[in-house]
Amino acid sequence: MKKIAVFTSGGDAPGMNACIRAVVRTAMYYGIEVYGIRRGYNGMIAGDIYQMTSHSVSNIIQRGGTILKSARSKEFMTKEGRQKAFEQLQKFGIEGLVAIGGNGTFTGATIFYDEYGIPTVGAPGTIDNDLYGTDYTIGYDTAVNTALEAIDKIRDTADSHDRVFFIEVMGRDSGYIAIQSGIAGGAEIVMVPEVLTPISEVVETLKQGWNRSKSSSIIVVAEGDEEGNAAEVAEKIKSRVEIDIDIRVTTLGHIQRGGIPTAYDRILASRLGLGAVEGLMNDHKNVMVGIIHNEIVYTPFRDTIRLPKPINEDMLRMVKILST
Amino acid sequence: MKKIAVFTSGGDAPGMNACIRAVVRTAMYYGIEVYGIRRGYNGMIAGDIYQMTSHSVSNIIQRGGTILKSARSKEFMTKEGRQKAFEQLQKFGIEGLVAIGGNGTFTGATIFYDEYGIPTVGAPGTIDNDLYGTDYTIGYDTAVNTALEAIDKIRDTADSHDRVFFIEVMGRDSGYIAIQSGIAGGAEIVMVPEVLTPISEVVETLKQGWNRSKSSSIIVVAEGDEEGNAAEVAEKIKSRVEIDIDIRVTTLGHIQRGGIPTAYDRILASRLGLGAVEGLMNDHKNVMVGIIHNEIVYTPFRDTIRLPKPINEDMLRMVKILST
Amino acid sequence: MKKIAVFTSGGDAPGMNACIRAVVRTAMYYGIEVYGIRRGYNGMIAGDIYQMTSHSVSNIIQRGGTILKSARSKEFMTKEGRQKAFEQLQKFGIEGLVAIGGNGTFTGATIFYDEYGIPTVGAPGTIDNDLYGTDYTIGYDTAVNTALEAIDKIRDTADSHDRVFFIEVMGRDSGYIAIQSGIAGGAEIVMVPEVLTPISEVVETLKQGWNRSKSSSIIVVAEGDEEGNAAEVAEKIKSRVEIDIDIRVTTLGHIQRGGIPTAYDRILASRLGLGAVEGLMNDHKNVMVGIIHNEIVYTPFRDTIRLPKPINEDMLRMVKILST
Amino acid sequence: MKKIAVFTSGGDAPGMNACIRAVVRTAMYYGIEVYGIRRGYNGMIAGDIYQMTSHSVSNIIQRGGTILKSARSKEFMTKEGRQKAFEQLQKFGIEGLVAIGGNGTFTGATIFYDEYGIPTVGAPGTIDNDLYGTDYTIGYDTAVNTALEAIDKIRDTADSHDRVFFIEVMGRDSGYIAIQSGIAGGAEIVMVPEVLTPISEVVETLKQGWNRSKSSSIIVVAEGDEEGNAAEVAEKIKSRVEIDIDIRVTTLGHIQRGGIPTAYDRILASRLGLGAVEGLMNDHKNVMVGIIHNEIVYTPFRDTIRLPKPINEDMLRMVKILST
Repeated sequence: MKKIAVFTSGGDAPGMNACIRAVVRTAMYYGIEVYGIRRGYNGMIAGDIYQMTSHSVSNIIQRGGTILKSARSKEFMTKEGRQKAFEQLQKFGIEGLVAIGGNGTFTGATIFYDEYGIPTVGAPGTIDNDLYGTDYTIGYDTAVNTALEAIDKIRDTADSHDRVFFIEVMGRDSGYIAIQSGIAGGAEIVMVPEVLTPISEVVETLKQGWNRSKSSSIIVVAEGDEEGNAAEVAEKIKSRVEIDIDIRVTTLGHIQRGGIPTAYDRILASRLGLGAVEGLMNDHKNVMVGIIHNEIVYTPFRDTIRLPKPINEDMLRMVKILST
Repeated sequence: MKKIAVFTSGGDAPGMNACIRAVVRTAMYYGIEVYGIRRGYNGMIAGDIYQMTSHSVSNIIQRGGTILKSARSKEFMTKEGRQKAFEQLQKFGIEGLVAIGGNGTFTGATIFYDEYGIPTVGAPGTIDNDLYGTDYTIGYDTAVNTALEAIDKIRDTADSHDRVFFIEVMGRDSGYIAIQSGIAGGAEIVMVPEVLTPISEVVETLKQGWNRSKSSSIIVVAEGDEEGNAAEVAEKIKSRVEIDIDIRVTTLGHIQRGGIPTAYDRILASRLGLGAVEGLMNDHKNVMVGIIHNEIVYTPFRDTIRLPKPINEDMLRMVKILST
Repeated sequence: MKKIAVFTSGGDAPGMNACIRAVVRTAMYYGIEVYGIRRGYNGMIAGDIYQMTSHSVSNIIQRGGTILKSARSKEFMTKEGRQKAFEQLQKFGIEGLVAIGGNGTFTGATIFYDEYGIPTVGAPGTIDNDLYGTDYTIGYDTAVNTALEAIDKIRDTADSHDRVFFIEVMGRDSGYIAIQSGIAGGAEIVMVPEVLTPISEVVETLKQGWNRSKSSSIIVVAEGDEEGNAAEVAEKIKSRVEIDIDIRVTTLGHIQRGGIPTAYDRILASRLGLGAVEGLMNDHKNVMVGIIHNEIVYTPFRDTIRLPKPINEDMLRMVKILST
Repeated sequence: MKKIAVFTSGGDAPGMNACIRAVVRTAMYYGIEVYGIRRGYNGMIAGDIYQMTSHSVSNIIQRGGTILKSARSKEFMTKEGRQKAFEQLQKFGIEGLVAIGGNGTFTGATIFYDEYGIPTVGAPGTIDNDLYGTDYTIGYDTAVNTALEAIDKIRDTADSHDRVFFIEVMGRDSGYIAIQSGIAGGAEIVMVPEVLTPISEVVETLKQGWNRSKSSSIIVVAEGDEEGNAAEVAEKIKSRVEIDIDIRVTTLGHIQRGGIPTAYDRILASRLGLGAVEGLMNDHKNVMVGIIHNEIVYTPFRDTIRLPKPINEDMLRMVKILST
């Protein structure tokens, strides 16, 4: 393998730049030429491709977002789009790809390989931590800490005013951010998509707290919770709880995607970037590089796409015990 | 004056604890007994009052919220409520009050003085910075920095995806937080209640940016903007702009009220707490202590309540120049 | 087991409060009475012991330091001291202990058990991450992020002035903080006690960088490095490098011990606190609770004390590759 | 004025990039061509000069350091050096300069004007806040908050171990950082170069605290204190205090120069950058732009160089009262 390219695709996540840096520096270290593709598959189709060197990635390890920009591409879902993309890669002589993104990105890469034989190694870049094949994904630790900082701030106000706060965090299909930020934030209840928390149970917990004169509470709700988003859940509670509780709702929103990556995310991203390049060198294809139990592993895209990543139900048990 | 009491009232703001600490320590320094009243006027009515010492305020200067808790009181708006409050203060022998809060609090204190002759010196505690009689209010600098951190994070995502973000910050009647966080965050446009920004102007600015291939933009909207909240403004823009811009909306919400106070807020709060006690000692009553041009000043409550605090329109001019 | 006590001992670490909270809440959950002992073994000897409830640990999960205070105890190293300690525990009817600390603490607990039969489960509380029997210790993730924030700030200055900075981080016998903060901070070289980095190699790397016109560099040095502390290493380099490099030294010092714990540390501390109480309930004694590969494990004190915790040499290889 | 140039000189300070951005954008707004000079006067002599546009300063407002790099220049202190610098400026047709730095920079600019008639407007960029002619300098608010964060962390440890900490902050000739970070950090004593704090007074305060069972203390020492640096002061105290106090020393060092600028510093820097360009347009020369009582003012370099900036002694009085 003499020439490879790297791109970011799907939602951006803190640590993507650290991963790009590791891909570029590792390639340089092994004497491989490395190219950057801007705006994901869109840039691949448009030929928005440039050669990168060590200097290209100086002083980016600490930056949120992605210097290669990211996008979702409808055109790459068409045969014509992929044909153009292949021609562009041919033009530059690119023989392998590192794709930093999630399952949408990996699905595209699989089809592309079947059609044109260009191998891709994926790196899991998403704040949701919902990818099978790795303990953690790039951006997840930062997102949890961002959510936690927000919860800490809100608790100041909740305590000062004896309020109950419903805080909605990201996680469409996954309760990872909710559970970790909830435990770390000392939440009384955490509601996640994977496990139903009945409204009656929430009402009961609030009433018990009230009777113990626990006057303020934090309830963390994942955006994909079965009972609805935080505002909907709060409405249901308000209509059921008979005591005079001051209930507020806040949705953390897009701040969870950005920010300076934590040490954990930078190191994870660096290891995965290095592992992705070494994976390509060792003829891996259609696999995602991950870290499980502190070891680099390569998992086929078909598994990362097909298999669910269960949450640790012990964690939900812990929320209950610690809010005693 | 031998015995005074301190309380916080209205919305909590970072730095209130630093102010409480300064009130307590200053009173101790001058040999005055000092009491804390919990939950504002509600606690005054209920007699939720306790003696404070230097130890009571150890290690609180860095904490958000208020250790005395805060509340809005309907009962204090009744004659019966105030009668009860007076009786409680009598019981403890309290001769003067320091009220940390805003105009609602000061209005109550004025009526209370007219009826019972207990003097109050107010300290401006509100993140909105909308009080006449002081350059800055306690909590404002922290709120601006909290909003700014959020804007910084969102810009990472905006840049990575070439998006336009409408970010709603707090400020029902006041654009202070919007303007300062907008300038500091490099916003292209800032919309405030005090000055109408026509939708057509926003559309024009976005189009011009688009033509200069400025692909991402941040628009900060104060919650009290005349054109509506951020979601409403964004809707209007979407229907008018003909180009294919990816527009997102986020509302920062309650995180702006909490958090560790900045150096500025802690120092301001400390100076005002000291100034409030010295004000009571010098027979000030029905006044708010403030800092104007770095000097302590006392402004009658009737002026802080009656007079508007204009924003600096030079700042709006600066937004325009700096987004060139 | 009806009554247990918890204490912190040795150097404080962020997350100790989260661990205390988990111990207290878990004990309450299982109907066990729980006591807090202040200032470690000193307080045990002095009888500085009080009953704790859910309220005692409200709103402490986010605080650095330890509400139970910590100390090293010479008196507990004497037979008389331990005799007094035992009498105090007898007085309160305490049947088991949770000790949050390091190997010094665990050694004391082992002797104490041999003499008086009071079982202890330990929880690893130290920023150094140098304890065998757990992947990570309480406080380590926070310390790494604190060091990293400092490195980020210093890089701003290093870049602006084309300087080489030697940054000394904590870790007397262990390079964990140095390696993780060094990789995450994009350091060109990391010097740790476990592996000798010859001065000549550092000089060579700096010269190579200079020749590639890489004008600024960060070198992270663990305080226990064989070549000396950061100032000593910098002196050796200065005298050997012939080119005109502007070399500066900074020692991060005590800031690394404090601060708001990260999400990771709060969750780790919570799990370990819960695991410690459940360990005592299941008749564990003279063991440290740890987490290895995301599972709770109990390791005998004799092993945590005797066995070294090796650093991952792959990480040192990564530093070299990524500074290409 | 058709063409101007901007440069940074002396020690870097957070907010310098925000100032550069404002200079560039304001010049563009008024139709003036603007150039950046790298590495201060050194780059001026070497002709390391390039044209800047709005894009050159995109996304830098939040970055510490300076994208134009900074240096102290010995060559500019020679007649030959300045001759070369003039020739370079001639080559580019540059008619006016904006210099972001301190008194060393302004002295050079004054001599340069006398010799070659190129006018300079200075902007005060230094974390020390020791410049006459402005209430605050660029970088000062960030440095104070950085020192404060460190003090907050150290207090966690001080409290947990009942220790006395001597913390040295920057400020060779100026106690500004020490006083503000000391008050905000709740320090018991602040030692500054401007006012002698006798060792005996420090000893007395520590003993009194000890007698009131105030077991931990923070003493902030400016690096330029007359009694010596923090380590020296601590030594003197140790030998004089007879009680068994655990005394530690930490020097914050270079972290105080870097970091993401606060809202205050970004706004101040933006206003000063705008004011500097408008100053040149209005034929100002050999002046520093500053903000006093929230108004833009221009002060002759000869005054900023000659006149001292006194600290507010009321602040020292406040330290004493608040540590009661």
